[in-house]
Amino acid sequence: MKTDANALNNLRHSCAHLLAAAVMELYPQAKRTIGPAIANGFYYDFDFGKDKVAESDLPKIEAKMRELLPNWTGFSKKMLTANEAKKAYGDNPYKDELIEEFSKNGKEKVSFYESGGFADLCKGGHVDNPSKAIRAFKLLSVAGAYWRGSEQNPMLTRIYGTVFSSQKELDEYLKQLELAKVNDHRLLGQKLQLFIISDAVGPGLPLWLPKGQIIKDNLETWAKKVEADWGYQRVTTPSIGKSKLYETSGHLPYYANDMYPPMKLKDGEEYRLKPMNCPHHHQIYAAAPKSYKDLPLRLAEYGTCYRYEASGELFGLMRVRGFTQNDAHIYCTQDQAVDEFVAVMKLHEFFYKTLGITKYHLELALRDPKKKDKYHGDKAMWEKAEDLMRESVKKVDIPMVEDQGSAAFYGPKIDFVIESSIGREFAISTNQIDLFMGGRFKLKYTDSAGKEATPVIIHRAPLGSHERFIGFLIEHYGGAFPTWLHPVQVAIVPIGDKHLPYAKSIAQKLKEQGIRVEIDAADHTMQAKVRTAEEQKVPYLIIIGDKEVKAKNISVRGRGRKDLGTMTVNDFSAKLVKEIEEKNE
Amino acid sequence: MKTDANALNNLRHSCAHLLAAAVMELYPQAKRTIGPAIANGFYYDFDFGKDKVAESDLPKIEAKMRELLPNWTGFSKKMLTANEAKKAYGDNPYKDELIEEFSKNGKEKVSFYESGGFADLCKGGHVDNPSKAIRAFKLLSVAGAYWRGSEQNPMLTRIYGTVFSSQKELDEYLKQLELAKVNDHRLLGQKLQLFIISDAVGPGLPLWLPKGQIIKDNLETWAKKVEADWGYQRVTTPSIGKSKLYETSGHLPYYANDMYPPMKLKDGEEYRLKPMNCPHHHQIYAAAPKSYKDLPLRLAEYGTCYRYEASGELFGLMRVRGFTQNDAHIYCTQDQAVDEFVAVMKLHEFFYKTLGITKYHLELALRDPKKKDKYHGDKAMWEKAEDLMRESVKKVDIPMVEDQGSAAFYGPKIDFVIESSIGREFAISTNQIDLFMGGRFKLKYTDSAGKEATPVIIHRAPLGSHERFIGFLIEHYGGAFPTWLHPVQVAIVPIGDKHLPYAKSIAQKLKEQGIRVEIDAADHTMQAKVRTAEEQKVPYLIIIGDKEVKAKNISVRGRGRKDLGTMTVNDFSAKLVKEIEEKNE
Repeated sequence: MKTDANALNNLRHSCAHLLAAAVMELYPQAKRTIGPAIANGFYYDFDFGKDKVAESDLPKIEAKMRELLPNWTGFSKKMLTANEAKKAYGDNPYKDELIEEFSKNGKEKVSFYESGGFADLCKGGHVDNPSKAIRAFKLLSVAGAYWRGSEQNPMLTRIYGTVFSSQKELDEYLKQLELAKVNDHRLLGQKLQLFIISDAVGPGLPLWLPKGQIIKDNLETWAKKVEADWGYQRVTTPSIGKSKLYETSGHLPYYANDMYPPMKLKDGEEYRLKPMNCPHHHQIYAAAPKSYKDLPLRLAEYGTCYRYEASGELFGLMRVRGFTQNDAHIYCTQDQAVDEFVAVMKLHEFFYKTLGITKYHLELALRDPKKKDKYHGDKAMWEKAEDLMRESVKKVDIPMVEDQGSAAFYGPKIDFVIESSIGREFAISTNQIDLFMGGRFKLKYTDSAGKEATPVIIHRAPLGSHERFIGFLIEHYGGAFPTWLHPVQVAIVPIGDKHLPYAKSIAQKLKEQGIRVEIDAADHTMQAKVRTAEEQKVPYLIIIGDKEVKAKNISVRGRGRKDLGTMTVNDFSAKLVKEIEEKNE
Repeated sequence: MKTDANALNNLRHSCAHLLAAAVMELYPQAKRTIGPAIANGFYYDFDFGKDKVAESDLPKIEAKMRELLPNWTGFSKKMLTANEAKKAYGDNPYKDELIEEFSKNGKEKVSFYESGGFADLCKGGHVDNPSKAIRAFKLLSVAGAYWRGSEQNPMLTRIYGTVFSSQKELDEYLKQLELAKVNDHRLLGQKLQLFIISDAVGPGLPLWLPKGQIIKDNLETWAKKVEADWGYQRVTTPSIGKSKLYETSGHLPYYANDMYPPMKLKDGEEYRLKPMNCPHHHQIYAAAPKSYKDLPLRLAEYGTCYRYEASGELFGLMRVRGFTQNDAHIYCTQDQAVDEFVAVMKLHEFFYKTLGITKYHLELALRDPKKKDKYHGDKAMWEKAEDLMRESVKKVDIPMVEDQGSAAFYGPKIDFVIESSIGREFAISTNQIDLFMGGRFKLKYTDSAGKEATPVIIHRAPLGSHERFIGFLIEHYGGAFPTWLHPVQVAIVPIGDKHLPYAKSIAQKLKEQGIRVEIDAADHTMQAKVRTAEEQKVPYLIIIGDKEVKAKNISVRGRGRKDLGTMTVNDFSAKLVKEIEEKNE
């Protein structure tokens, strides 16, 4: 049975205390900062001063934790004044800063929690008896982290660990973690030569190598074809626009922190990299007068956007600064909104089904009713948008959770969250029925009664951005892409030089059918070449020796050393063309 | 017989003098500035102060020119000191500025040329007897122009005119000009709903509408297919990069004026929009070690670049600030360079032939031997690059002219210049054998002897940028795109409402074959709908009435009201599919 989320949080937070206690025993000069529970574990950040603490030190720290644990039989709380609290830490500016904040500049007392003789500034949330509850724990890794996440602050050392309520759960998690390491898209991306991130170009700005580009192009061609069938029209808009455009949209100032700084022209005009495609699409809508007969109008673009993510937040292809979105905006009447939104969710399902993605759910992000100043628009508008989205979700069979406070500044949204085969969750596509921006951009149409009306705008991006989505797919397939997506569909290994001409004639015949083939003519053993093809997770491997040359056929192996027997090249290519067309694995 | 270029220049420059004389008679308060001969005519810029001069004033000015002309029987030259020259103009800061320059701050005398009693600061170049030579002239238009082309200077009024040595040539030119007006890509772009330029996004940043996007997508899909056949591999790189990257390439400072200003991040790093794709592609080359066996490596990208063109220079799709290039870089050994460059030129010819472009030539741009500080690299390198390019051109049959002084800062280049059907010339594709950047970026490969060597880099872009090339194609075809490129391949006009169901079934059958169809179900007369289809230059028009519904066939019209008779929808769609595949008009 899985432990409920709150209990698990208490367990993990308690274990973070224990980690800090062990570290302070081993490194008395260290300054400790904060140690929260997080998804899948906990961490604690330390300023070790001149000491270097690396992953090789973790067993020692873990041993100290186990040594201390028997004395941790409970947590007790005490209230201290700010001065008492600061004194308890001696010289520790990080804790001083926190104490100032928590005590509202010394006006209130702050809480400390103590166990096994170790006390720490803490708002609570622990297990009753750590010595019994903390059984299955492990320290995992060491990383750098800026104090409070800001690059302007000192770099601290973060120690990650995890704890579960049973050894079995811990073992499962560690196994998943091992798999995650092997299937990590950064690692596979390098191994399969899919993309690079170049320091000379800049962090968070991936460059697609030819093999990654093949995946990207195939995905894009497919998505464009599907979207054309679903009634979308395509446009292209530039990646920059006047700052004023983003003032109209409200991105400035509400989204300014996520945007690249302005480019100031000599003529006084200011430009920005676009963080989203919407304002540009609205210009296309507004370019010609519209009537209700023109609606719904579905404008789609693989649009390239730039967002300034803090360097500490960047993560391979998953969190980047430059990305190309499978974006579209649907302009429709309010009466059409639910049908259109349902169709959008069905489009998601169609895409995901084809790709073999079965684990996904919806997250309805609502505004935080206590922080009304964070959001635009009036109450009725927020409620109407929420109603329309809830009504739509009722018409499809996808589980949904709700989250207060994570809405966009201009309306509630529904994220599609998908889980990769290694257990990572990603919000891939953000969807909105937007009753706000149409008015903001003064978009109009003439309704059937001849009156001026404002269109509803639906935002959607089922395949997210190429970057995040392909990052996900790499992990989802563990690099073993289905044939239609794999950069190399067939690897041909001639056993010796004398088999090369026949290998080339086979390759030529497959290429004529549009199949992507590579001949491995390197000066290696057959075994080594087979291993290379296997490492590249190539769907089909053809080995050419005397027997095949003589019989004028080919011996084919599928992935996982599956022997598919001998056949003529024509039979094989017909089978393959069908498989590619049908997008089977 | 055509007048030679120099004689024509003298004629036009003389006519500019005559224009200035007429203007000064009619508007004595005007301040005159400069009046050069240009391609196809001449202009003269005036500061009219409070007076407004518009195109409606041109007949009056032209009449005055004709009135003055009989007295213009020759030009005489006199030399004036700077003070005398300034005095001759009274209060004219523009001429003062020129006189200061020409006289080297008063140190030298300046030349004035006089005819018919009208003298002007001038370096010469006139006809002997204007009253006889100037016969076939016409004032054409009025435009605003900044003094010396800089936005920081006052806006002047520019009067354009032209003059030819015979009335026949003038008439031909004026006819071409009329055609140019009708086929102007800006006008047709609007009429056919291909693109917009939105002031909210910014000048020079076109947005592609769905119909323009269809042309762009088809062109791009075709180019990618052709380039794959020619051995190119595709990549994608971001539109921004660190400023340091462009310091490495030398774009900073050599190309800085053409670049957007920097974006300065909080962490001190500076980013720029990329003006060219090369530095990014070099990062991909450098990402993995290369051997001579990996060469030639042909990396292609439809890459989006941004250049800061002065607002006065912007011109529809032809001169823009944001554009997507049909770009590629070929990395090869020096021995491979000529073969690769020849192949590049043959690829151009293949592309152009398919598109029916027959008028083109090469322009070899060399460095100005007097301005060595404008260029990078050593003499031997410049000569070698030039030699390799000349050797390549000898192997193809394309006429070439030479131009001293227009080389890139890092090497000589060869432009493909094409002429549109309305007589406009455009440098579409810049090609280079570049011996410089490989070293600058420390690019390496291991040669067959196991030694480290630097690759040669070939730059090329046969289809230029989408923006300029499609701008050209719009004028080239006058909007009557060949069927494979036209956004609407077939227009169906049902005569009455009762013919709509049959029209829809025909449309459906064509759509199933991938044909782009529109049904005009608007509440207009058949004649009006036919006119609309004709204005949209739709290749095929199907009119559906009682007869067709009864006979279960269709009546098809080609462009230009060509009656193609009645046929079954299957026969028509088979014909069309073939035509589209073969890219026939």
